[in-house]
Amino acid sequence: MNGAESLVRTLVKGGVEVCFANPGTSEMHFVGALDRVEGMRCVLGLFEGVCSGAADGYYRMTDKPASTLLHLGPGLANAAANLHNAKKAGSGVVNIVGEHALYHIKYDTPLTADIEGIARPFSHWVKTSPTSKTVAGDGALAIQAARVAPGQIATLILPADTAWTEADGPAETPATPAPEKPSQETVVAAAKALKKPNAMLFIGGRALRARGLELAGKIAAKTGCKVQGAGGTARIERGAGRVPVLRLHFVIEQAQAQLKGTQQMVLCGAKAPFAFFAYPGKPSVLTPDGCETMTLCPVEGDPLASLEALAMELDAMNETAAGVAQPHRPDRPKGKFTLDGLGQALGATMPEGAIVVDESVTTGRGFFPFSAGAPPHDWLNNMGGSIGFGGPVAVGAAVACPDRKVICMIGDGSAMYTIQSLWTMARENLDVCVMIFSNRSYNILYSQLADVGAANPGPRAIDMLTLDRPTLQFTDLAKGMGVAGGKAHDLEELTKHLTYAMSQKGPYLIDVIM
Amino acid sequence: MNGAESLVRTLVKGGVEVCFANPGTSEMHFVGALDRVEGMRCVLGLFEGVCSGAADGYYRMTDKPASTLLHLGPGLANAAANLHNAKKAGSGVVNIVGEHALYHIKYDTPLTADIEGIARPFSHWVKTSPTSKTVAGDGALAIQAARVAPGQIATLILPADTAWTEADGPAETPATPAPEKPSQETVVAAAKALKKPNAMLFIGGRALRARGLELAGKIAAKTGCKVQGAGGTARIERGAGRVPVLRLHFVIEQAQAQLKGTQQMVLCGAKAPFAFFAYPGKPSVLTPDGCETMTLCPVEGDPLASLEALAMELDAMNETAAGVAQPHRPDRPKGKFTLDGLGQALGATMPEGAIVVDESVTTGRGFFPFSAGAPPHDWLNNMGGSIGFGGPVAVGAAVACPDRKVICMIGDGSAMYTIQSLWTMARENLDVCVMIFSNRSYNILYSQLADVGAANPGPRAIDMLTLDRPTLQFTDLAKGMGVAGGKAHDLEELTKHLTYAMSQKGPYLIDVIM
Repeated sequence: MNGAESLVRTLVKGGVEVCFANPGTSEMHFVGALDRVEGMRCVLGLFEGVCSGAADGYYRMTDKPASTLLHLGPGLANAAANLHNAKKAGSGVVNIVGEHALYHIKYDTPLTADIEGIARPFSHWVKTSPTSKTVAGDGALAIQAARVAPGQIATLILPADTAWTEADGPAETPATPAPEKPSQETVVAAAKALKKPNAMLFIGGRALRARGLELAGKIAAKTGCKVQGAGGTARIERGAGRVPVLRLHFVIEQAQAQLKGTQQMVLCGAKAPFAFFAYPGKPSVLTPDGCETMTLCPVEGDPLASLEALAMELDAMNETAAGVAQPHRPDRPKGKFTLDGLGQALGATMPEGAIVVDESVTTGRGFFPFSAGAPPHDWLNNMGGSIGFGGPVAVGAAVACPDRKVICMIGDGSAMYTIQSLWTMARENLDVCVMIFSNRSYNILYSQLADVGAANPGPRAIDMLTLDRPTLQFTDLAKGMGVAGGKAHDLEELTKHLTYAMSQKGPYLIDVIM
Repeated sequence: MNGAESLVRTLVKGGVEVCFANPGTSEMHFVGALDRVEGMRCVLGLFEGVCSGAADGYYRMTDKPASTLLHLGPGLANAAANLHNAKKAGSGVVNIVGEHALYHIKYDTPLTADIEGIARPFSHWVKTSPTSKTVAGDGALAIQAARVAPGQIATLILPADTAWTEADGPAETPATPAPEKPSQETVVAAAKALKKPNAMLFIGGRALRARGLELAGKIAAKTGCKVQGAGGTARIERGAGRVPVLRLHFVIEQAQAQLKGTQQMVLCGAKAPFAFFAYPGKPSVLTPDGCETMTLCPVEGDPLASLEALAMELDAMNETAAGVAQPHRPDRPKGKFTLDGLGQALGATMPEGAIVVDESVTTGRGFFPFSAGAPPHDWLNNMGGSIGFGGPVAVGAAVACPDRKVICMIGDGSAMYTIQSLWTMARENLDVCVMIFSNRSYNILYSQLADVGAANPGPRAIDMLTLDRPTLQFTDLAKGMGVAGGKAHDLEELTKHLTYAMSQKGPYLIDVIM
């Protein structure tokens, strides 16, 4: 057994069962080993950002790391933007990055680069395995690192000669230490804070799963505190029967309105609220002046255990959670597109168990109320702010959950960064409905121009924000990659397309021409 | 004048007249300044790899750096693979990367990342400007750094508050020191070496321009030495009336055949020949055993001045250059596709002044002889090995040389990495003929599997090398981005499409279905 095979066997033994791959020469032994080892599903992407985003989506839906297989420094660099998003979302990923044979690196040939240097800004753990005999053990350490709560990016660099030289065999993955739970003292302090007036429980991470929200609802029922979701949320379990939660708004004034009057803030699985960007004359810190903030559970803690301890301390376990959503669907909307109408169309048609991957940027900010009573579903948002997130994460979610419908909402500008994800959806016949919101612009930047004080944009500035010259034809792009689809010019057409997409299996793209 | 405007004015004053941009919020002041400053052409890309590759192509054709405008760490990361290619090719690029306002970075919001850390592996020069008053001076230093021979990657990080705060005005770009010329002692030694039997002049960089090749041809006529081009070549000026040169072959055995028998090697603008990848049991060093190698001019030197000094030393300036190509076009080929037939179709149709951007990978390796006698043209190859090079470099070459036809040859696998470049071609009506060689596979990897010793691939391995499930329809992809095109199923159809493409202005895509 060579080093590559020892690594593939280590991954499979360690529960890493999917590899999102875009391999090259230096990864051929890893690829060759796939036919000798059962249990690793290998999914090809035509661009590495598809692979890393897919690993992110897979982790969010399974809480298990997938691997990526990337070709030296540039392959890793192409994956980096979605690794950034995964890192910020607390998703565990095991990157396997090929490297030249160790003796070859010194010749500085075309693909030679500082791979560790490229990996570091996007990884919690980085290692170049020095020999074929260490590859399996290092792979096991990478899996262990990826599993550190809430999930980490581990990058293992695999020199070609360590892949092709004889190895001993696979390694066992050591257990990952469980995340720390809050001290009793912290729990008591949090309970005390939430019993005060104008208190807010500010939650993120796994506190946004159904059980966490239920506990938050019980705590709210007992104490009267508000429950507020963070701005970035990796996965919210929502819909009928669940406690709804709103995300903190991207726009500073609206976020401030959500937080207004809060005097006590208890953080659980989330950092304190800060503005996404800085703007001249506007604050970076969004917590109201004088608000006392304490951390019940940091991002890398155990939000569910923390909420349980808090609910116990408050004697809230037998409370009925506040605000549980009742089953309700909006009517099918009609007429011209409105933002509310788009939200209604989604709420009216989404099936039970849907996984909504939301990179709708400006369009989808107000969609939540229209699906609060829809059948139970998951909602995944971008936490890293790097666009090109939606399609790849949808790929990973669909691979993770083949029996569930994935609904991927993307702005047209965002969609183009990783448009190659459509091909992987077709190749793997993934059950994804892609909605492209074609407003023919980087629409968010119009408001941002004003917000940063770059007012009165001239024609050259506006030219940098518009996507209408030429108009992108997403149905042609989809067809070119083997994905069927159609155009929607109003809400009836959209609802018709959505109904069709939900009734069948496999990828389907709807170009929502706004 | 704010910091952003002082930077734009500094760039324009410093001769940086094009900005390949994909901006976001943190770059809005730079964008806003474009309307207040004359002289900066701003070209939008839908993905940052298009921008960085375009800057590479622009430099190769003008010897002048362009700027890129990129959105924080992830935007830079998306640009990185083509920056890697540009760095290896010795292309000068000034990257302007937005960053959060300095006071905002500590809040670690979604887009916060170690931008300097991301930049370093891909840059020769990196700086975060600390205040609005330093932005102009740092911009000037970036231009100076980008101009260091043969061309360098300079990355200036621009915190949003340094962009929006008042500045003093633009800065003058200091002169870049000229590259070192070889000592007389070195020139004499090189002359002596080349006069020995079995000598080779091994050239790269600007030695491959027409004047360098002419000098090499004179030296060959005088001494009887062989002239061999490096494996990676940023730009070769070739065609009728020029001294032809072959690149060193990618395949080790064929490269060894080219170098066989060489006992004296003189390097000029090129490093010694090494294998692209390492393979078990094959050498990394390609120079024959016992060959004496000396450097007349390193990669960062002045190859043209070096060849001139060498020709003078050899008293070769009045020689007739050996092997000057006579005007000759192959006949228009007919019948089924063959690799030679593809080369003939190109040679038969390419117009004078064509710029061939070659990312044809396996398909185009043997094309050179068929266009050696075509009208004078330039040929650009990938020197970094990161695929996704062709379309973006074609964009930059076409922006640089609006009166010349760009012919961009790309393998289907490579084309998908940066397929977004088609949109910029349409938007700017760039005169590019894109030929996609659709062999429906990462064809190179079949041979690589065997070469690394991963023989007898099974179905899962083969699945990672094939692109035929589903088949990519490049004419649909082109249509979706506003580029016309057609499919060629044999050499007649290809020649017809090529003839049409050469007869009109603007982008046109030919899907060569092999």
